[in-house]
Amino acid sequence: MKAGGFVLVVPEGDAPIFARIAGAVVADIRRGRLRPGDTLPGSRTLAAALGVHRNTVLAAERELALEGWIEATPGGTTRVCATLPESPPRARPAAAATRAESVGFELGPEPPAHVSPAPPGGAIKLLGGLPDLRMVPATALARAYRRVATSRRAHELFGYADPRGDELLRAELAAMLARSRALALEADDLVVTRGSQMALYLTALSVLRPGDRVAVEALGYRPAWSALQAAGAVLEPIPVDAGGLDVERLTERVERAARQGSPFRAVYLTPHHQYPTTAVLGQPRRLALLALARQRRLALFEDDYDHEFHYEGRPVAPLASADPSGQVIYLGTLSKILAPALRVGFVVAPRPLLSRLAALRAVIDRQGDRLVERALRELMTDGELERHARRMRRVYQGRRAALARALEEQLGDVVSFDVPRGGMALWARAPRVDVDRWASACEARGVVLQPGSRFSFTGERVPAVRLGFAAEAEPRLRRAVRLMAEALLGLGR
Amino acid sequence: MKAGGFVLVVPEGDAPIFARIAGAVVADIRRGRLRPGDTLPGSRTLAAALGVHRNTVLAAERELALEGWIEATPGGTTRVCATLPESPPRARPAAAATRAESVGFELGPEPPAHVSPAPPGGAIKLLGGLPDLRMVPATALARAYRRVATSRRAHELFGYADPRGDELLRAELAAMLARSRALALEADDLVVTRGSQMALYLTALSVLRPGDRVAVEALGYRPAWSALQAAGAVLEPIPVDAGGLDVERLTERVERAARQGSPFRAVYLTPHHQYPTTAVLGQPRRLALLALARQRRLALFEDDYDHEFHYEGRPVAPLASADPSGQVIYLGTLSKILAPALRVGFVVAPRPLLSRLAALRAVIDRQGDRLVERALRELMTDGELERHARRMRRVYQGRRAALARALEEQLGDVVSFDVPRGGMALWARAPRVDVDRWASACEARGVVLQPGSRFSFTGERVPAVRLGFAAEAEPRLRRAVRLMAEALLGLGR
Repeated sequence: MKAGGFVLVVPEGDAPIFARIAGAVVADIRRGRLRPGDTLPGSRTLAAALGVHRNTVLAAERELALEGWIEATPGGTTRVCATLPESPPRARPAAAATRAESVGFELGPEPPAHVSPAPPGGAIKLLGGLPDLRMVPATALARAYRRVATSRRAHELFGYADPRGDELLRAELAAMLARSRALALEADDLVVTRGSQMALYLTALSVLRPGDRVAVEALGYRPAWSALQAAGAVLEPIPVDAGGLDVERLTERVERAARQGSPFRAVYLTPHHQYPTTAVLGQPRRLALLALARQRRLALFEDDYDHEFHYEGRPVAPLASADPSGQVIYLGTLSKILAPALRVGFVVAPRPLLSRLAALRAVIDRQGDRLVERALRELMTDGELERHARRMRRVYQGRRAALARALEEQLGDVVSFDVPRGGMALWARAPRVDVDRWASACEARGVVLQPGSRFSFTGERVPAVRLGFAAEAEPRLRRAVRLMAEALLGLGR
Repeated sequence: MKAGGFVLVVPEGDAPIFARIAGAVVADIRRGRLRPGDTLPGSRTLAAALGVHRNTVLAAERELALEGWIEATPGGTTRVCATLPESPPRARPAAAATRAESVGFELGPEPPAHVSPAPPGGAIKLLGGLPDLRMVPATALARAYRRVATSRRAHELFGYADPRGDELLRAELAAMLARSRALALEADDLVVTRGSQMALYLTALSVLRPGDRVAVEALGYRPAWSALQAAGAVLEPIPVDAGGLDVERLTERVERAARQGSPFRAVYLTPHHQYPTTAVLGQPRRLALLALARQRRLALFEDDYDHEFHYEGRPVAPLASADPSGQVIYLGTLSKILAPALRVGFVVAPRPLLSRLAALRAVIDRQGDRLVERALRELMTDGELERHARRMRRVYQGRRAALARALEEQLGDVVSFDVPRGGMALWARAPRVDVDRWASACEARGVVLQPGSRFSFTGERVPAVRLGFAAEAEPRLRRAVRLMAEALLGLGR
């Protein structure tokens, strides 16, 4: 638009018109096309030239005045301020002049990186633990977020807050755990964390001293090992079998270590759906483990990352539900029910431990994102979260069946497996196959799966693959198995 | 509603009607009013009885079928499934039976807690570092969040992601830092963290080894000291004065420690607006500090937590903008510009250090909340963030003046201060007052302020108070100062 020699180009965009007009004026000031002291045309002239209502121009001017770009003159006109809210940007210095490429102080050894590169976009992802993200109730989530962020008392949620997490979310989680896991809880019996990864890290730091011996399942979950090691733990791998953690072997190791004067301090385990095999820890082993923990004063870090997804019978009540002596620290997450990116997990533990966890959390991370926490609480009170979990359980049950059937039909002579009673993945043994080569050949065909070596303690080969069935629809699962069979033929087995 | 002996009570609520109808059916099944095998009335009958469209009833039935509560019979009617998606809840066990009150293993000493209790709701909060949360652009934020969460490719944002933070947000932050801080950056030159607290924790863990000596400002920022100590640092307090960190004293200490064979490894400082005094570190000290760091291979942890809020002249370019040898690790946050609850901060450092930071972050916290990160990026590309920052700078500038004026008028004989050139608080010395008692008396009158002892290294008394002026409007600031004067009279000074 052009008004009395004044030309203003208002860009297209999603922002309201008044904001775009104000932005165009700022851009002109920054470029030097408008200078301190320059007079702007009157609002009527501007409105007519831009083809907008005069109120829109006045709103833009209010914004510009608020930000300190323009001011009213005593004569009733509007001009660019003599002192601008920002100086013209200095010339951007050359990178070499200011950015160092190396550090000017000593660094220790590089920590191990456990984050796998993202698989290519179109690939069929048979990754255990990845929920179907196309089915996340995103609209309900966005609605809840808006409701929270624009509520009358939202300003209270934008500030600093309890490092244990939003109290209403904690109350809702406590009620959910009481309903679904036979855990008698109140809001103060848990701490909200950033997913189960931070839940374990905080737990390990709160309980362990550097050098403490901690038993872990092997095969097992490498990021958990890293969190334990970051807290100074010395890990002792204990084998797993079709019944989960081998508690008899664990007991031998614990007793021997106690005799040798270097006792175990804790056990990290995934008793509900063992990671990666999805085996369920049976009742006799559970009782033996709890007895051992009581006797040897072990802490049990119980990671129940996908509790809801159990298909045969009802979910098994956690170790934490039968723990009068306070051995168990129970870790959970909403990452599998909803979405990993939301980063909401929790720790249930005796309160003396929770107060340490909260103090540590404040040091590491201050607190959670209270708007997201409160929005998730809204999804829970609306029943949306449990509805979604039930829906997904049905969907995953169908996918589990489809994957198992396809494997039997196409690869029945190569792989053997138990249909998992729960979880989001199927553990398929392939004793006569080089599974690492097979996994690479599958990836070349657009199917991403996890070879057993990914879960072994020493990185040695494991003749099995973990096939996640949750993230992909049934036709794609069938297609993946066909491609896996092709890839196997291509290996010239 | 009642249809053929079937009574369904649909609760009020925000959820869509179909979801509430489905919820009412689930509630009846859970209560045992509907039992496995029971037949539901036809959808027309139900719709008529409930006064809703038949499609609404059909949507509710689809939902219930998806979740596994009801199924179609071969005869064309609908009935409650024989096997329900959840078993009736067990009796909630008594707390004593399952919840331990104490832990069944050894715990070390309790870590120090640094989170102050939340001040009472109606209090006037003169807390430095707290922005005005009533002015957060909440509607724009909620709109951006919805746009991100419901976009066609949202499912990609719900999954596991780069622990360095969303790439588009990093690019936008890099551009902002290049524009405003003379830092020549690309997206890969920074890592997004959870606020500056996690930024410092990750930095300390990446750089320091247990026992390393780190210089800190004293007076200073206690949560930062905790983060450094959590990484094993041994802190060495260095005094501050009206010119910020006393670099001459620091140099003496560093040189002496080097001669004694126990060298310093790092310095943590807030050079732009020293915390808590808001003093600006002058140019000669900056040059001397950088030279010392180069010579002694010190890491400088530069915490620039409220860069934007500078009122006299333009903000001072950070140490990181003149650091060709890679001494500086630059920490920032959006907590002060937008809101603490959003927990988005960043670390700018040479890439070899950033890769360690990212690996550590993955162990501690896996990754950020990518939806929030992407929503903030939208606010940045829309120009909303910079607009908001400029707006708030004007507002805070007015509040700074109002507070300074009120202090001079009401307490001019008691306190002395420099009007701060930047920051969100005013540091007022009150040499003849017991400020800890004064702060308590103020709190009793509904004014929360921070006595100097809060910032001292050893907890000793400091005859000064920190008065935050950002969070409260000018009339409330004036009222606060009146109440402070009354409280002082009440002390019988």
